[in-house]
Amino acid sequence: MDFTSDNAFGAAAPILDALVAAAAGSSPSYGEDALTERMRRRFCDVFEKDVAVFPVATGTAANCLALATVTPAHGAIFCHESAHVEEDECGAAEFFTHGAKLVRVGGAHGKLAPNEIEAALARFRPGFVHHPQPFAISITQATESGTVYTPDEIAAIAAIAHARGMTLHLDGARIANAMARLGCAPADATWRAGVDVMSFGATKGGALGAEAVVFFDPAMAGDFVYRRKKAGHLLSKMRFVAAQLDAYLRDGTWLALAGRANALASRIAEGLARLPGVSLEHPVEANEVFVRLPVRLAEKLRADGVRFHEWEPAREGHVLIRLVTSFATPEADVERLLSCASAS
Amino acid sequence: MDFTSDNAFGAAAPILDALVAAAAGSSPSYGEDALTERMRRRFCDVFEKDVAVFPVATGTAANCLALATVTPAHGAIFCHESAHVEEDECGAAEFFTHGAKLVRVGGAHGKLAPNEIEAALARFRPGFVHHPQPFAISITQATESGTVYTPDEIAAIAAIAHARGMTLHLDGARIANAMARLGCAPADATWRAGVDVMSFGATKGGALGAEAVVFFDPAMAGDFVYRRKKAGHLLSKMRFVAAQLDAYLRDGTWLALAGRANALASRIAEGLARLPGVSLEHPVEANEVFVRLPVRLAEKLRADGVRFHEWEPAREGHVLIRLVTSFATPEADVERLLSCASAS
Amino acid sequence: MDFTSDNAFGAAAPILDALVAAAAGSSPSYGEDALTERMRRRFCDVFEKDVAVFPVATGTAANCLALATVTPAHGAIFCHESAHVEEDECGAAEFFTHGAKLVRVGGAHGKLAPNEIEAALARFRPGFVHHPQPFAISITQATESGTVYTPDEIAAIAAIAHARGMTLHLDGARIANAMARLGCAPADATWRAGVDVMSFGATKGGALGAEAVVFFDPAMAGDFVYRRKKAGHLLSKMRFVAAQLDAYLRDGTWLALAGRANALASRIAEGLARLPGVSLEHPVEANEVFVRLPVRLAEKLRADGVRFHEWEPAREGHVLIRLVTSFATPEADVERLLSCASAS
Amino acid sequence: MDFTSDNAFGAAAPILDALVAAAAGSSPSYGEDALTERMRRRFCDVFEKDVAVFPVATGTAANCLALATVTPAHGAIFCHESAHVEEDECGAAEFFTHGAKLVRVGGAHGKLAPNEIEAALARFRPGFVHHPQPFAISITQATESGTVYTPDEIAAIAAIAHARGMTLHLDGARIANAMARLGCAPADATWRAGVDVMSFGATKGGALGAEAVVFFDPAMAGDFVYRRKKAGHLLSKMRFVAAQLDAYLRDGTWLALAGRANALASRIAEGLARLPGVSLEHPVEANEVFVRLPVRLAEKLRADGVRFHEWEPAREGHVLIRLVTSFATPEADVERLLSCASAS
Repeated sequence: MDFTSDNAFGAAAPILDALVAAAAGSSPSYGEDALTERMRRRFCDVFEKDVAVFPVATGTAANCLALATVTPAHGAIFCHESAHVEEDECGAAEFFTHGAKLVRVGGAHGKLAPNEIEAALARFRPGFVHHPQPFAISITQATESGTVYTPDEIAAIAAIAHARGMTLHLDGARIANAMARLGCAPADATWRAGVDVMSFGATKGGALGAEAVVFFDPAMAGDFVYRRKKAGHLLSKMRFVAAQLDAYLRDGTWLALAGRANALASRIAEGLARLPGVSLEHPVEANEVFVRLPVRLAEKLRADGVRFHEWEPAREGHVLIRLVTSFATPEADVERLLSCASAS
Repeated sequence: MDFTSDNAFGAAAPILDALVAAAAGSSPSYGEDALTERMRRRFCDVFEKDVAVFPVATGTAANCLALATVTPAHGAIFCHESAHVEEDECGAAEFFTHGAKLVRVGGAHGKLAPNEIEAALARFRPGFVHHPQPFAISITQATESGTVYTPDEIAAIAAIAHARGMTLHLDGARIANAMARLGCAPADATWRAGVDVMSFGATKGGALGAEAVVFFDPAMAGDFVYRRKKAGHLLSKMRFVAAQLDAYLRDGTWLALAGRANALASRIAEGLARLPGVSLEHPVEANEVFVRLPVRLAEKLRADGVRFHEWEPAREGHVLIRLVTSFATPEADVERLLSCASAS
Repeated sequence: MDFTSDNAFGAAAPILDALVAAAAGSSPSYGEDALTERMRRRFCDVFEKDVAVFPVATGTAANCLALATVTPAHGAIFCHESAHVEEDECGAAEFFTHGAKLVRVGGAHGKLAPNEIEAALARFRPGFVHHPQPFAISITQATESGTVYTPDEIAAIAAIAHARGMTLHLDGARIANAMARLGCAPADATWRAGVDVMSFGATKGGALGAEAVVFFDPAMAGDFVYRRKKAGHLLSKMRFVAAQLDAYLRDGTWLALAGRANALASRIAEGLARLPGVSLEHPVEANEVFVRLPVRLAEKLRADGVRFHEWEPAREGHVLIRLVTSFATPEADVERLLSCASAS
Repeated sequence: MDFTSDNAFGAAAPILDALVAAAAGSSPSYGEDALTERMRRRFCDVFEKDVAVFPVATGTAANCLALATVTPAHGAIFCHESAHVEEDECGAAEFFTHGAKLVRVGGAHGKLAPNEIEAALARFRPGFVHHPQPFAISITQATESGTVYTPDEIAAIAAIAHARGMTLHLDGARIANAMARLGCAPADATWRAGVDVMSFGATKGGALGAEAVVFFDPAMAGDFVYRRKKAGHLLSKMRFVAAQLDAYLRDGTWLALAGRANALASRIAEGLARLPGVSLEHPVEANEVFVRLPVRLAEKLRADGVRFHEWEPAREGHVLIRLVTSFATPEADVERLLSCASAS
């Protein structure tokens, strides 16, 4: 029973099938091929806009190439203190930007709070060369706490960014989970809400390794293609990443896979929340369940073969754990988890 | 008839099979999985040594992460003036090293000439802070001219490097073609000849996208794992790259695929060299044919549907072109190419 | 009446005299000259240790070259949230280190609180490639709040650093003010207390532009000389910076100049603290006075020609201002300031 | 008898006087002061144009900050193979630009040959992401061979640069020597000939340490001020560098000092060229004499106390040496040198 991460699971069948199909014959390398173009058009269709799409192999690459394109070395990037780009990328954004500053901003349940963004911005005096200058805000959708920004919440943050000429970046490592939850048009929760550039993630959703940087205004891509090459992220046989993205977006596959993961997380959340001494730390709106439970219960689950991350050290007999579901988490595992938990 | 590049071809069946097999179930991410460990042991077996192996998705990443690990910002890296790292990576080595200097060195047929290395080294005064300091020599095997260093030739270069405390790096984007040609033990043409760190390429050889940095002395890897992460090259579902490398090395698959490509290149070289006005620019020792031929013949081939790269602008009625074969180039295409050529 | 900054004042006579004396004749450039060696020995004498000393022209250069020498790109540097290197250098440390992360740590009156350092360190998992790794702690002496660490306080922080193999850096832009206050041997408040590397500032103390990086263990300097050159901080006529440092340290000039500035600050603090509605924000231990006073009083001072920095926006009728004294602040200005204030 | 470098000499009297005058009182820091503004206007007057001027402490800083402002990481900078920025700055340009590539171009007597620039440019395919893209050409005036570009020669190079949208940078570490030689208006040999940005050097000419980046079109300065700060090159007491530059440019002091150095070099060149077995390597147009002479003569000079740089290892009984004169080289030393030489 593996609830450690959505990264732990393999690859979805439609994506594997697409890879096998793409393996035959020859075609131009470095993204000049027909499959990469088909994928680009797929993004345009899904997002109802002519967008620029650049496939890469990792989420860190997507985030940092995107941010570096819109933030010079003397810039500052504002993100939630739990953001992947701040907490889990070993300072990659600073590396790609040649030393821009990430500014940690708070907010409940993993979401940037507009008033805290404003407070953080106030620390940076415009035009003062001793201070990095604000260039970008980065939000994560779904958030690192398993919650989902509404389009209105995004629009409020975009308004702050755009009022100062800043760019709004969205880290969409779990964008499919967010969109499956929201149920709205993908455009409504991205560019129509003010997102300028997005890291679109497919790996956690069922791909082998496929992410993309999407500029909603292609002109904003600027020198992106050189940055990607210079950082070693231009794939020679790009069609194999394009094939994954294409299959993922085709016929709503991405939303179906994510919807399944979300449903399993909800089921876990509901099942556990009923138990005595158990409380949900954050609303469960995507595929992650952050739950505070008695240490004894956590130990029992582990003894029963449930694998998960301890999120905070235990305190006063309780511990905060994270359970993640994926496109491939067996339903039976969820049921078994719940029966183990209630049998305690 | 596609002879543009080995990158143009898709993926070999054993590698695809391995991917599909790896897609089931769950396993730890970021390389902590059993498949990645199996791949590592496979490298140790093939190279008869306990080595450190780090999979990445591109050859540029492999080259530049390897070079940056052994070269500080104030270092100089000596390579052939045709080397991929110098000519085709948009300055990635400079980016990863934070500004080390690549020094272009000559030598016939794509091979570094020891006396030219010595001459280049003489320009850099040891301990003189105004000069970058020599830290690494990088050779390419097979070379960018389709030739292959013998173990003795490598040893002569290694001797120069090691006499000055420098590291010898080998860019093995086409290492399989070289090994298939040499027929010796892989160890003999790498670490036993003095190579310290290797970029091992599988993508051109039949993988979808799989390269690895191999440190023959694991202690030399130093902070490699942080560099890889910080540059966005740590793959979350690393098992999918490990699976490719594992299948590639298993049962001599890499050598069989490369041997096939080499044989086709030899066939082309022999066939063309017989024609009037045609001459081979370099010995054909791997899977690339550099051939100088009448412009008319080149035009005829193109009209007949043969695709290739013009390597130098035409001059005095002749043009230098490059023809590349791969694991998947149809034999029929080779025969058709030759009959087109001789029918002119 | 200029109390804006110690940077606002010019240069002390002994330093100017030394410059003029150094201007005659010829001598080796880039620090190979006798004057630079004399300066080095002066540092060794003053700090009772064989140290490595590298003059540079700015404090930002000193801080960031020092920190980059001891912190790789994947490192983290812990400093007070008010530290110059974090707040006033436009992300220079990130630039010089190629993207290390500065971690903001709290503590009263500008001093790092050991328990807050421990809490910040706990966020970084050792050996976990997704996290930057702790490499250095940087303290500022005198602090940005005008307070002074005691040797014992420094030793407590050094103990935390050294227990984890981290380096302790001291930003000594106002080290003279601190030493004048402490009255102990310079060695006692630096290397004997555990400081490994120091940015020694003379500019604020009366030089035209002279700072030095001092490694208390010369072996720790590593590749510093290359970093300095590569960043454009190796001065060709280095003797002119060496001359300033040499004159500054000779015969206790540095302490005499700083002692004068400290005394003027104390006089201001005492005079203002007596007035109704006025309170000192921090103990006044060096040459800076942070004082909270009625907005009306601040406005009156300004109208009377007193210049100072407003440190925080006014709130509830009071405002926090900063007054800085220097080696050259006229005593008459201090008395005038106090009589203006008490006449309100 | 010191002919090693113009860097070996101290400081000219008018510059020292200006420093002493600037040392009194207080004024805004970081370049907001009246003296810095006066210096800026002085540049505007001398160059007959409204220019942006940024003082820094070293020539490497001036060159690399200028080049980095006009060249992104994926850019290429074309310079003479003897250029200081390529040969003597330890890869600083690569550091400041985050990895741009310097391209070595040949040309007789230290001057870039237009046809060699064109040949070098031809190696870089426009828009091809695998290649760095040409962004700047850098020339050195006077050159590293002691020659001087005429305005027409500069214009020819500018034409190549501007035809491709590239920027023309001039490294003017010895701009005064060149202008003193040319005798034309400074504008004629800079912006009117097509120079876009200049590193203006005063240190070699008689300052203690004073250089400036001059953008002839202030709009081109872009984010220069942030780059300067982030690299630690913003001087807090900037007025002391401004004072040097102001005094240097005032009343033609720069040209008078350089003219004197040039005249001494000419005197040496004429005197030595008359001797048997002695030949000038380059025309002597500024303050450097490159002379090939019998090894015996070189040894005699050294034995007589003449200090100089051996420029190339001796070969066939002759050796190439460099003799540099400065604003402060004693005339008597020149005469003594010549009599030593002719007495051999």
